[in-house]
Amino acid sequence: MAVGSELLRTGFRETHSFWLTQHLEAEGFEVVSRQVVSDDEEEILRALGHARSRAFLVVATGGIGPTRDDRTREALAAAVDRRLRLHPRAETQVKSWCRRHRFPFTKSQRRQALFPEGALVLPNRVGSAPGIWFRDPQGIVLVLPGVFSELTAMFQPLAARLRSLPRSIPATAIFRSAGVGESRVDARIRATVRRFPRVEVTTLASPGEVTIQLRSRGPSAAAEVKRCRHRVAGVLGVDLVSERDETLEQVLLNLLRHRGWRLATAESCTAGLVAARLARVPGSSSVFPGGVVCYNDRAKERLLRVPRETLARWGAVSRPTVLAMARGAARSVGAEVAVAVTGIAGPGGGTPLKPVGTVHWAVVHPGGRWALSRRLSGDREKIRAHAACLALDLVRRALLEKRSGAVRRS
Amino acid sequence: MAVGSELLRTGFRETHSFWLTQHLEAEGFEVVSRQVVSDDEEEILRALGHARSRAFLVVATGGIGPTRDDRTREALAAAVDRRLRLHPRAETQVKSWCRRHRFPFTKSQRRQALFPEGALVLPNRVGSAPGIWFRDPQGIVLVLPGVFSELTAMFQPLAARLRSLPRSIPATAIFRSAGVGESRVDARIRATVRRFPRVEVTTLASPGEVTIQLRSRGPSAAAEVKRCRHRVAGVLGVDLVSERDETLEQVLLNLLRHRGWRLATAESCTAGLVAARLARVPGSSSVFPGGVVCYNDRAKERLLRVPRETLARWGAVSRPTVLAMARGAARSVGAEVAVAVTGIAGPGGGTPLKPVGTVHWAVVHPGGRWALSRRLSGDREKIRAHAACLALDLVRRALLEKRSGAVRRS
Repeated sequence: MAVGSELLRTGFRETHSFWLTQHLEAEGFEVVSRQVVSDDEEEILRALGHARSRAFLVVATGGIGPTRDDRTREALAAAVDRRLRLHPRAETQVKSWCRRHRFPFTKSQRRQALFPEGALVLPNRVGSAPGIWFRDPQGIVLVLPGVFSELTAMFQPLAARLRSLPRSIPATAIFRSAGVGESRVDARIRATVRRFPRVEVTTLASPGEVTIQLRSRGPSAAAEVKRCRHRVAGVLGVDLVSERDETLEQVLLNLLRHRGWRLATAESCTAGLVAARLARVPGSSSVFPGGVVCYNDRAKERLLRVPRETLARWGAVSRPTVLAMARGAARSVGAEVAVAVTGIAGPGGGTPLKPVGTVHWAVVHPGGRWALSRRLSGDREKIRAHAACLALDLVRRALLEKRSGAVRRS
Repeated sequence: MAVGSELLRTGFRETHSFWLTQHLEAEGFEVVSRQVVSDDEEEILRALGHARSRAFLVVATGGIGPTRDDRTREALAAAVDRRLRLHPRAETQVKSWCRRHRFPFTKSQRRQALFPEGALVLPNRVGSAPGIWFRDPQGIVLVLPGVFSELTAMFQPLAARLRSLPRSIPATAIFRSAGVGESRVDARIRATVRRFPRVEVTTLASPGEVTIQLRSRGPSAAAEVKRCRHRVAGVLGVDLVSERDETLEQVLLNLLRHRGWRLATAESCTAGLVAARLARVPGSSSVFPGGVVCYNDRAKERLLRVPRETLARWGAVSRPTVLAMARGAARSVGAEVAVAVTGIAGPGGGTPLKPVGTVHWAVVHPGGRWALSRRLSGDREKIRAHAACLALDLVRRALLEKRSGAVRRS
């Protein structure tokens, strides 16, 4: 339960609940409902009541600071029918925070030490407001600050206490595939997972990638998930990027490291997205020295020495150009492997022969060269993200020297 | 209200509600609560009851497809106490969808035509399940498919119908600032906005940028927001990127276009993020020909001709190197303006003199050169995003030839 009127406004992407879901699941809890409510005390009270009727553990964030908008304390006291009292330990903590930050200990600051009777104080080492742990026969309500850094810092010490609560830890497995769409992945694994009725399967698609999660509870859960995992991996074959929740870029960088090869990038329509994904992995610079963003023809000539005749004859979005870009990137950067991508991300720039979404990729490495072209769908942003993902995946497949239906070795 | 067990799983980032919030706000509605619930019929029923007690209009997504998991229909019928009946218009639509897609019209498909008595059918031109519009004295419940493309396609024709409902359209204004933190922006505008008690102010921070939204309802709302907007703009001065909801990259590209200058990028720690942001804007290639990602020293020498002695003497993260990178990028790409960024994104690589988060930026253009260094906080991802944003902002300030406190003209 996230409390805060601003979280209900346009543009705000409330993400605390995603973080909490992940960490609560890791501790064996099943999240059954999520809510976002305004700062209004009445709203918080009703939402707390609704949440308490659905679950034994309710985690609320926000609304426990010193300002007048912060009403979660009052709503909680009303929801659990206890009086708010100054809690001496909480008061000490708020006072010491004020001292450290040279703030006066005002009446507003003091409000942060008001706790429902019987509630425990959760120390906040980052911010001023202590968290609240309340338990009665109906269940537990945990209130944490709405500031993300405070929330995460306070959650870690809580993990041990949460682990002592009754819950059944599910067995899970996470796969990641790339280069094939969600519906194709679904169709391919459907018959396999049907043989495991106690294993819940969820798939999550992003442009170019599909994450598959298996989960099961109960005595034989671990063995069942293991068998299901084995079968699913067999069905997916080379389309499977990782069985261990590694990202595509991590897998790719490991493959390069294993071969002792470095990778260069040459990007037109993705304009840096491929490089930026590689650089998300700490330590990637040892195998990824760099690349080039060549967003128009002249940059392709200057930075990658793509011949003017190639561009004039075949166009910037073509197989000869993308191969020349890859060769140019390997040479300019000084790398054994290079990947290039060029395409029409739209909304303008499409032609009847090369409509918006047309993308060409190429990979060169000491063992050969690969080229691929596809027409991607979606808006500009989606086409670019999809093209970047498929660029990484083409390198992965080229390094594995396996060819999917769509990849031609030239 | 988003229905779907998978939305409550780790990794899923439910985003339909953000899209709906934006579009409902644009039609003048105020979103007072958001919920995510599982496919369980009882859960949906309780959540619908809770939502109906909070608002006149409830928009639910998901759970109206043909599978056994899809229980929103049944829950809605129970929540509004009406029987489910086969709706002839809905049946025609589902049948024709099945025919077009060569699917048999099975009992499962037929379920999609079951509607609570008195409900209206909302045609679905993209998928199989028609939407539901239900109205009784207590309010309106709108059920749309959980597939994003179907949801968005169905929402557009609904807008007119929603506009006929009673609501008060707020007057709003959106500002964007860059290069200063949220707390500093807050502190600077606090006294100003306090003079407009009827204007609600929300700020939204992302690394390096702050978006400020003003909103007011009532007869004098437009005039008040206008006056408040004028005052806030005056207070923020050059830190204000846009008063009209333009992105930093849009503003920057327009400034470049106005001068007739092109921009090149040279990125180390951001590794393509600056280029990728510029390329988000359609048509940017006319002012942004390209750039270079030089993720290690050798790439800086090869691609940007940064002198080996500079790197050896000052290190890769230094003012002389970043200036040499910018000059190299302008020359290599062939652009009048160039921006360079180099830094230590962590988690490794920090030293006592150059801790993690240390970043240097430089801009060169025909009118001079600018350099900036700062220590940014946060994890690797945050430091990189922040560094990319400040790179764009430094170009903007250099083009405006205004210097903030932190920017030194060298």
